[in-house]
Amino acid sequence: MAKVQNIKGMRDHLPPAMMLRQHIVATITGVCERHGFEPLQTPIIEYAEALEGKLGDDESLIYRFEDHGGRRLALRYDQTVPLARVVAQYAGQITLPWRRYALGPSYRGERPARGRYREFYQADADIVGSSSPLADAEIVAMLTESLTALGFPDFVTMLNHRQIVGGVARASGLDEASAGGVYRAIDKFDKIGADGVRDELLRGGVSAESAAQILALVQIEGPPAEVLAALSERLAGDERALAALENLRAIIDGLGQMGVPPERYKVAPRLARGLSYYTGLVFEAITPHWPEGSLLGGGRYDELVGQFAGRPIPTVGLAFGIDRLHDVMEELKIGPRPATTAVAYVTIFGPEQMADSLALARELRAGGVNTLISLDSGGLGKQFKDADRKGVSYALVLGPDEIARGEVVIKDLRGGGQRAVPRAEVVAALGEA
Amino acid sequence: MAKVQNIKGMRDHLPPAMMLRQHIVATITGVCERHGFEPLQTPIIEYAEALEGKLGDDESLIYRFEDHGGRRLALRYDQTVPLARVVAQYAGQITLPWRRYALGPSYRGERPARGRYREFYQADADIVGSSSPLADAEIVAMLTESLTALGFPDFVTMLNHRQIVGGVARASGLDEASAGGVYRAIDKFDKIGADGVRDELLRGGVSAESAAQILALVQIEGPPAEVLAALSERLAGDERALAALENLRAIIDGLGQMGVPPERYKVAPRLARGLSYYTGLVFEAITPHWPEGSLLGGGRYDELVGQFAGRPIPTVGLAFGIDRLHDVMEELKIGPRPATTAVAYVTIFGPEQMADSLALARELRAGGVNTLISLDSGGLGKQFKDADRKGVSYALVLGPDEIARGEVVIKDLRGGGQRAVPRAEVVAALGEA
Repeated sequence: MAKVQNIKGMRDHLPPAMMLRQHIVATITGVCERHGFEPLQTPIIEYAEALEGKLGDDESLIYRFEDHGGRRLALRYDQTVPLARVVAQYAGQITLPWRRYALGPSYRGERPARGRYREFYQADADIVGSSSPLADAEIVAMLTESLTALGFPDFVTMLNHRQIVGGVARASGLDEASAGGVYRAIDKFDKIGADGVRDELLRGGVSAESAAQILALVQIEGPPAEVLAALSERLAGDERALAALENLRAIIDGLGQMGVPPERYKVAPRLARGLSYYTGLVFEAITPHWPEGSLLGGGRYDELVGQFAGRPIPTVGLAFGIDRLHDVMEELKIGPRPATTAVAYVTIFGPEQMADSLALARELRAGGVNTLISLDSGGLGKQFKDADRKGVSYALVLGPDEIARGEVVIKDLRGGGQRAVPRAEVVAALGEA
Repeated sequence: MAKVQNIKGMRDHLPPAMMLRQHIVATITGVCERHGFEPLQTPIIEYAEALEGKLGDDESLIYRFEDHGGRRLALRYDQTVPLARVVAQYAGQITLPWRRYALGPSYRGERPARGRYREFYQADADIVGSSSPLADAEIVAMLTESLTALGFPDFVTMLNHRQIVGGVARASGLDEASAGGVYRAIDKFDKIGADGVRDELLRGGVSAESAAQILALVQIEGPPAEVLAALSERLAGDERALAALENLRAIIDGLGQMGVPPERYKVAPRLARGLSYYTGLVFEAITPHWPEGSLLGGGRYDELVGQFAGRPIPTVGLAFGIDRLHDVMEELKIGPRPATTAVAYVTIFGPEQMADSLALARELRAGGVNTLISLDSGGLGKQFKDADRKGVSYALVLGPDEIARGEVVIKDLRGGGQRAVPRAEVVAALGEA
């Protein structure tokens, strides 16, 4: 007997879960298309060579195998490297700047845990080939529109810039080489607190004075303009950091002009976000209802996408983790929760009424009502029970009396009760109900 | 430098192709949901053991590998075996009969050819746990509704039954053991013609008399009722074949009552369709515009789905091959062919007009108009060119004069010409255009 189970960390989604996932995906891709993003789909398998050398410590998590022709293949672990390949391979067919979205699964051989899966779905949205701060702002605006449309309460997007984080390290007298440890320590701020970060900095050889300076910088809070002003003062003289602050200011201006509500974002100098990859803006959306970490994030990465093309192609984007959003929405009980796709269930009174019942089902579907037909040859009671167990709202009865009177009986399986309506008005009656 | 190409037989879908694929998928899943089918999603990876032993000669095409924990895994080669696993694994959460649809990729390490890919997407629709002929009819009705909605001209679904094919062999005095060769020969009828089939039967050791009888039987044509009557006469005495004819008659009655137009189906005794799998109805949709083979097919398979559960679970279903449908629609030039997702392109006249232009884009999106904003700091001419190259229909201009007058200029990039409309009427103007 073969194994009758899914692989741990790779989930089956039964209909109720899948309907919520479809709602999440439709909401996000709807926002993408309203912004003129175009869909791209690439294979889930790539040449291993194309995927290797970009994941650092996580490289070992890649699923690799040989195909029937002895080629070394790998399952993709994100949709960004395939994007870079596509931009190089089809350069003549793509007009930059290019807004593209992509939806699909990726794979990492991690130890499964709460919110961490080996097969995970992402919806990526990226603007390829533009360094305009408007592009950065549009990505953050889309994040805001998507989470708002999904019904997330009280989320805030924290904004920072790679060169501000670098400036924080430099302002404390550290060179680029030792800055990595500083970023990693800062990145844990929300988990281990100020004292934890100080301890980690000291352990890493940072002087007590520098550690104090770093902690003061990364804890600056307030309205964006004030935070930017305070940082400008403290980072004065650091050209790169000042240019980064200028860039962040332009992005924030864009957010305002795009109508993103001010309570939905703030400048957070302590946001580091895996720095090997990003070159400019970095952001993460958080909510107090999910203290485990960010909902999703992204940023500007001007070097990766051009890697295959052999020239820099500035890019900014984000990845919506469908699994994370799904888990949090289940937890917060937000989003629609239909029991099934069907609204109506057409019973079959008996063989004589079969033709009429099937015709009724057809009329309902033509009128936009998702409709099940009974496959049960048993009595009406058994059919009502079947409809009820399936979570359908209305069972429809078309017996000889109803047919003679040109009526249909609508039995309300949720609210209770039943009523007869003229056949021609059934679609409208279900629409109102 | 890493390989900058996709793997042969696994395709990238750039936006124009992807938009057509989305249209195909939305049309098919729309039909599924109108019939109350529920979505299911399973991982693309399964335990190898669960997938093995079901593909016969094609077993060697399975992509197999070991994961980080040394488990033997495999990429699924269809969505039917995972369905069987789910039905067994979540028996308590599933109410039979269960109508489920599933969309996703599957993998077979075949030699790539026209219409044959190593990564291929399928939309499966199955009714699990019912042996009612209404279930068979509903599946064929959904095929008809889907191909009609997609705009396929002149398609016909050929219907047959496993036990009619068996009866044809038995009527020629052949036992079940040697029947396999007969099915395979018959199955080639549309490719090699009557003479070709006769030659193959003779080579397989069938007598000239039996071969003539088989050929006469499989060439019976005409309206369903006549074909069924002719077959009843010739297969009289073969209980299984007569029961099959009775079943096919009930399915055809159902098709009529479900409103499937009679020109969309016929009984074709020569349709064999990979017989190891099917136990009852088999069908394939064909069109003269695609002589290379069938568009898609399916049938009843009462043994496979219960294999993991350890009890028979009668099931009927079909698989829409998205790649095949896509290729044929490209060839026939049917289906929508939008150049891009965006309808409008909001230019940015200059820094002073930025805020107004971004507000306009927001209004358009709120009004349901997919809208790009310019990221180009160059002049209007350059922005018009960018909009044109992207395939957008309308470029919108909001210069100082327009702002002063409360107007927006709409430049028609396809039809030519431009006109000024009051700002409040822009959404309506684009809707009409």
